[in-house]
Amino acid sequence: MSTALTLYYAPGTCALAVRIALEEAQADYTLRLLDFSAQEQRGADYLAINPKGRVPALATEHGVLTEAPALLLYVAQRFPQAGLAPTEPFALARLQELHSYLASTVHVAHAHGRRAARWADEPEAQAAMQRKVAANMTECFALIECHYLPTGPWVLGDRYSVGDAYLYTVGTWLRSDGVDIAQFPRVHAHAQRMAERPAVQRAQAA
Amino acid sequence: MSTALTLYYAPGTCALAVRIALEEAQADYTLRLLDFSAQEQRGADYLAINPKGRVPALATEHGVLTEAPALLLYVAQRFPQAGLAPTEPFALARLQELHSYLASTVHVAHAHGRRAARWADEPEAQAAMQRKVAANMTECFALIECHYLPTGPWVLGDRYSVGDAYLYTVGTWLRSDGVDIAQFPRVHAHAQRMAERPAVQRAQAA
Repeated sequence: MSTALTLYYAPGTCALAVRIALEEAQADYTLRLLDFSAQEQRGADYLAINPKGRVPALATEHGVLTEAPALLLYVAQRFPQAGLAPTEPFALARLQELHSYLASTVHVAHAHGRRAARWADEPEAQAAMQRKVAANMTECFALIECHYLPTGPWVLGDRYSVGDAYLYTVGTWLRSDGVDIAQFPRVHAHAQRMAERPAVQRAQAA
Repeated sequence: MSTALTLYYAPGTCALAVRIALEEAQADYTLRLLDFSAQEQRGADYLAINPKGRVPALATEHGVLTEAPALLLYVAQRFPQAGLAPTEPFALARLQELHSYLASTVHVAHAHGRRAARWADEPEAQAAMQRKVAANMTECFALIECHYLPTGPWVLGDRYSVGDAYLYTVGTWLRSDGVDIAQFPRVHAHAQRMAERPAVQRAQAA
């Protein structure tokens, strides 16, 4: 039976953050898994849904939405009873600031490992980008440790939000990027705190 | 005399979008110009304000905010009478989707021209990235032409928003990226429409 929301998903991607948000909101949604190994995200069927050929995408009764930061706020606003985002403008802007940093700096730093071909054609240049991933991710998480987890337990302080799901998701990439999360004690503790949440466990289930 | 808002700014950057938004809102703000040629954005004074060493940053009475998408929504929400962003969740998510695409895909594609050193140390690799900028920006704006300006005149259709300021700003980089904006008729017409707005003219004044 179809539901109003369908999340187009692939494991190991930032779509995990949106899945966590949907689980936290106890939303009724359908999960549609894309087979990245078969390049399904580049097939005509999916490009008709999301012409960017990436995940996440969220099909709603009003149309398809893409981009993790947009989806996270949408889920929070669609299910306000879950309290997943503040409504006060300054607090919301702090959350949006973190989302934007994760999307446009941290995710991009990570993507230079596996997706270097986006930005240069030559294999030597792609290898040069891959060599810099660990250093760039370390720099990003050093800033997150100081700037976005100053008091905790959550990125907005006492209040849990979709920003925690996004930070946790990007943090799961550190190991494959050659970075030990334990060198960032607050980030590490935050990840452990997240892993204990039932919604996070449901989102990471098969 | 100081005002409640100070925008840290440099010409030619995405901070222009925030300046346009402030002008559209007829906000009382102070402009603080950073001298990028003297690397002022990397000096200790500015790093104490924004540890990322980039612009824009917006100092408010509650603290400093960074990241263009966050600032654009903040300005829209702080000055609601200007009507610069929708409040209905789906329409707001469409706006946020555009902001996120501009920040994490289009701005990043552009940045590989002048800031390639972020992602590789070797000059040859940096040159390889620079060679791909025009093709990547062309691909991005082909998607924008079809997907984000389907009817116009504005990115949300009939309704002007901060998303128009952001798209316009990123579009001003096309010429230096070696891309002729005229090959995207809707983007081109949008830019001309924007250039006629008094707020845009004020924001681009010296």
